[in-house]
Amino acid sequence: MTEIPPPPVLPQPEGADSYVVGVDYGTLSGRAVVVRVRDGAELGSGTFDYPHAVLAEALPCGVPLGLDWALQVPNDYRLVLQHAVPAAIRDAGIDPATVVGLGTDFTACTMVPTLADGTPLNEVPGFAERPHAYVKLWRHHAAQPQAERINTLAAQRGESWLPRYGGLISSEWEFAKGLQLLEEDPEVYAAMDRWVEAADWIVWQLTGSYVRNACTAGYKGIYQDGAYPSEDFLAALNPAFSSFVADKVEHTIGRLGDSAGTLTAEAAAWTGLPEGIAVAVGNVDAHVTAPAARAVAPGAMTAIMGTSTCHVMNGTELREVPGMCGAVDGGIIDGLWGYEAGQSGVGDIFGWFVKNGVPPQYHHDAAARGLSVHEHLTELAAAQKIGQHGLIALDWHSGNRSVLVDHELSGVVVGQTLATKPEDSYRALLEATAFGTRTIIEAFKASGVPVNEFTAAGGLPRNRLLMQIYADVTGLPVRTIGSTQAPALGSAIHAAVAAGAYPDVRAASGAMGAAPADIYLPIAGNVAAYNELFAEYTALHDYFGRGANGVMHRLKAIARRAAGEVPA
Amino acid sequence: MTEIPPPPVLPQPEGADSYVVGVDYGTLSGRAVVVRVRDGAELGSGTFDYPHAVLAEALPCGVPLGLDWALQVPNDYRLVLQHAVPAAIRDAGIDPATVVGLGTDFTACTMVPTLADGTPLNEVPGFAERPHAYVKLWRHHAAQPQAERINTLAAQRGESWLPRYGGLISSEWEFAKGLQLLEEDPEVYAAMDRWVEAADWIVWQLTGSYVRNACTAGYKGIYQDGAYPSEDFLAALNPAFSSFVADKVEHTIGRLGDSAGTLTAEAAAWTGLPEGIAVAVGNVDAHVTAPAARAVAPGAMTAIMGTSTCHVMNGTELREVPGMCGAVDGGIIDGLWGYEAGQSGVGDIFGWFVKNGVPPQYHHDAAARGLSVHEHLTELAAAQKIGQHGLIALDWHSGNRSVLVDHELSGVVVGQTLATKPEDSYRALLEATAFGTRTIIEAFKASGVPVNEFTAAGGLPRNRLLMQIYADVTGLPVRTIGSTQAPALGSAIHAAVAAGAYPDVRAASGAMGAAPADIYLPIAGNVAAYNELFAEYTALHDYFGRGANGVMHRLKAIARRAAGEVPA
Repeated sequence: MTEIPPPPVLPQPEGADSYVVGVDYGTLSGRAVVVRVRDGAELGSGTFDYPHAVLAEALPCGVPLGLDWALQVPNDYRLVLQHAVPAAIRDAGIDPATVVGLGTDFTACTMVPTLADGTPLNEVPGFAERPHAYVKLWRHHAAQPQAERINTLAAQRGESWLPRYGGLISSEWEFAKGLQLLEEDPEVYAAMDRWVEAADWIVWQLTGSYVRNACTAGYKGIYQDGAYPSEDFLAALNPAFSSFVADKVEHTIGRLGDSAGTLTAEAAAWTGLPEGIAVAVGNVDAHVTAPAARAVAPGAMTAIMGTSTCHVMNGTELREVPGMCGAVDGGIIDGLWGYEAGQSGVGDIFGWFVKNGVPPQYHHDAAARGLSVHEHLTELAAAQKIGQHGLIALDWHSGNRSVLVDHELSGVVVGQTLATKPEDSYRALLEATAFGTRTIIEAFKASGVPVNEFTAAGGLPRNRLLMQIYADVTGLPVRTIGSTQAPALGSAIHAAVAAGAYPDVRAASGAMGAAPADIYLPIAGNVAAYNELFAEYTALHDYFGRGANGVMHRLKAIARRAAGEVPA
Repeated sequence: MTEIPPPPVLPQPEGADSYVVGVDYGTLSGRAVVVRVRDGAELGSGTFDYPHAVLAEALPCGVPLGLDWALQVPNDYRLVLQHAVPAAIRDAGIDPATVVGLGTDFTACTMVPTLADGTPLNEVPGFAERPHAYVKLWRHHAAQPQAERINTLAAQRGESWLPRYGGLISSEWEFAKGLQLLEEDPEVYAAMDRWVEAADWIVWQLTGSYVRNACTAGYKGIYQDGAYPSEDFLAALNPAFSSFVADKVEHTIGRLGDSAGTLTAEAAAWTGLPEGIAVAVGNVDAHVTAPAARAVAPGAMTAIMGTSTCHVMNGTELREVPGMCGAVDGGIIDGLWGYEAGQSGVGDIFGWFVKNGVPPQYHHDAAARGLSVHEHLTELAAAQKIGQHGLIALDWHSGNRSVLVDHELSGVVVGQTLATKPEDSYRALLEATAFGTRTIIEAFKASGVPVNEFTAAGGLPRNRLLMQIYADVTGLPVRTIGSTQAPALGSAIHAAVAAGAYPDVRAASGAMGAAPADIYLPIAGNVAAYNELFAEYTALHDYFGRGANGVMHRLKAIARRAAGEVPA
């Protein structure tokens, strides 16, 4: 770690200060932040928990849901506008008349089925008891069979868009969820005029006009080179699905940072903001974090590190990087290629270990010291020299998204002895996720997309040992973001651009993005030590992950058979 | 598991019952058992804890000991004769005049430096403060540098005896310990007339005559084909060591089951047994367990399963089986080739996991149910179907003795997910040790030494799940021994043969050996399921163990360097 550099000298807009509001729609709540246009200062915030949270067991009326379902109620999103935004204005103590723009970001892919005027189907009389009339949250995983059919067919046909997604369309995305809707409730499908990303639906509620944002259209909606999957392809999946794009999906695409429209009188009344101010094109939580972190230049990677990690980065050209989640023209900021990669398990793996693999004495010692078990293990692990624990782990407990795109892979630990302690295993898991990130960075580099900077966002960067390990493993300085609400700040930056306060997102990011909270510099000796261990990680990664030994696939098949999920 | 078969109909000796006494010298205590000659009934027992236990930190006079030292005080062994034997006679309620023989077994390789009359050097005036004058217990590991020199030189010279020991002479054995003594305390070495296995020293104390038993001479003393390592070889190790065999080691070899002599008046007074009764040639705890289990026929393997596992088995011919601990003519019973193999970690691995890898809730639940954590995990694991946990582990946490002979190997777990529970990992470790045993059995078979029966002795066979897993993995019926003091019973069997009550150990074993306590039969469906998983184990075993990926060696080297044990 080193000193934080001074903030850049910024051009100051003339006259009285003006403000923008960013609203970040998360999985369980929405958060609004009031931000000063000239320097990005965060002056106040408000949050609102969705009254219905996530519907996983049953609809509000009691209709039960199947395994892996996850729905939401769209009016909860409107309530955020009515509660969190006014609360943020009050908290900031500003005159709402000085707010010049509003921006939003959302979880994705979260899909709302609507009528032609944007009314969610669950609000249409006669549909309140139909599960498919509700919002399918990003983590609704019940469309897995449909996703597998899409992938198999696309691979067979050699569809040109498939490599843009590392060869794998997720069950979380628009087409798999839409096909599930068609096949399980054709009446709701027939009644549905639009299949809308929640990121765009909320903007529609604010402006009265529907604009598909370039980010989700590209990353989740398979919009590539100006087109969606063909009618032929859709018909081969299911003849009734052939006109899905034409009937339900296709619509004007809005560039990120553009204005999607202006605030309606109704939305002005909800929020207390002036009617007619600019509302930015919708966006996604991970992707707006990049400008919040001043990390929009080509080669500046932002990693949103939580239960899993999402890596976003801009590049000047399209390259097919193996194992990416998506490469989208203007997917992060307009005019550049936005790349997204991911690690399926990161904080989840650390949490799993602490829950399942740490003996009572450690819990007792942590409690006696007023620390969490994570903090206690981190302190013990931090006292070790690199390699002292003698372990190498593979971070595939939740499968591998990038670069192998294989969710049948699983975790490995090599090197255990009778002297192996919990802090040894914990540190090996921290390191394994860093090696996983380095593997992604190396894939970018090998494909001609350089990675020069690394910014860590999300909850995990609080762990200082983890951040130093990432610096030493990647050989890059690791910056953490000096904002506790980076996505909302990113949305506010988009609002400022939509309002015309800056010429583009890149300029606004430079002026309004948060300075790094900390910078962790790679330490030369540590880099050398980790290079040696990364070579071991890579050998195991390739052995287990690239087909030399398909044991992980076979173990999963055996386990499913043993559990009776498939016939023996 | 199945019904226990009725005991065989045995020839009954005529006249009044006669008895033998077996004494088992363990690491911390000695146990005497009184056994009826005609049927092996165990009538009484007595134990005596060594007053000095194991000297690991300092001599009784306070002289400190180095790292990895483990010494004992030989008079503690005499005290066992004076306390445990009379206690066993009292407990049995027999007339000591009806005892016709005495047999002993000992830990090995445990070495006593003595004068020509058998006096231990620590009892010689002037030597009480010299660590090298004491008994070096089997687990004295401070002769590792000497062992490595012996192995390197023997491999270089292509010594014919090396393959008999799987290519590795242990630091625990006679030559490594003897060389350490010479090099670290030449005065004690010069004063030492004999370098005596404790197994033979105690017989010397009982009979007044020194006989080297064929078992330890072969397994620990590198006595093969009638010869020890040559003077040339010894001189190349250290010129002062050249006459080690001629001066300190070479002596009459006694066949197992023979009488080494008769009980002296002094020893009769110690024990309360009749002067002049037969005393059997000395023996080793693991090896006497085979006759106690009626498992002396060629192809009947006995596994003594505790912290580690020792496998002993007779064969009709000498074959060089890869990775054996030793193949010795008459090493278990006279007239057959005795094979010994081993797994470095078994119960130790389960203990390590319970200590280091099980969260508080499991400890709480076990306590609430009045179970040990081992028992609780075993119950949870027993409810699973084979392969349901999705894991494969390698049981090398303490290295691998047979068949790879590589103590730089380490443990592996493959297949962890966020759903992996402690009972999953525990079961995978139980299974890994069973796969390790099967690997040894397959090595025997592949070398032309068939394995037809499997008897489990030691502490681990109490775990019924473990026994069933061993039956299902090996495809062999697994018998457990119906004696809680199998080694002492085995020594009593040798005493009966030495006393002439039976023509040989095989006959005595049939008459006096314990019937199985339980027999676990392999279940066809389970055998098939484990065949599939054993193929996965074998692939990983060969990948990590036979050089395809030397990651484990490199991780150990890195760990040593990181810990500062070797220069970077």
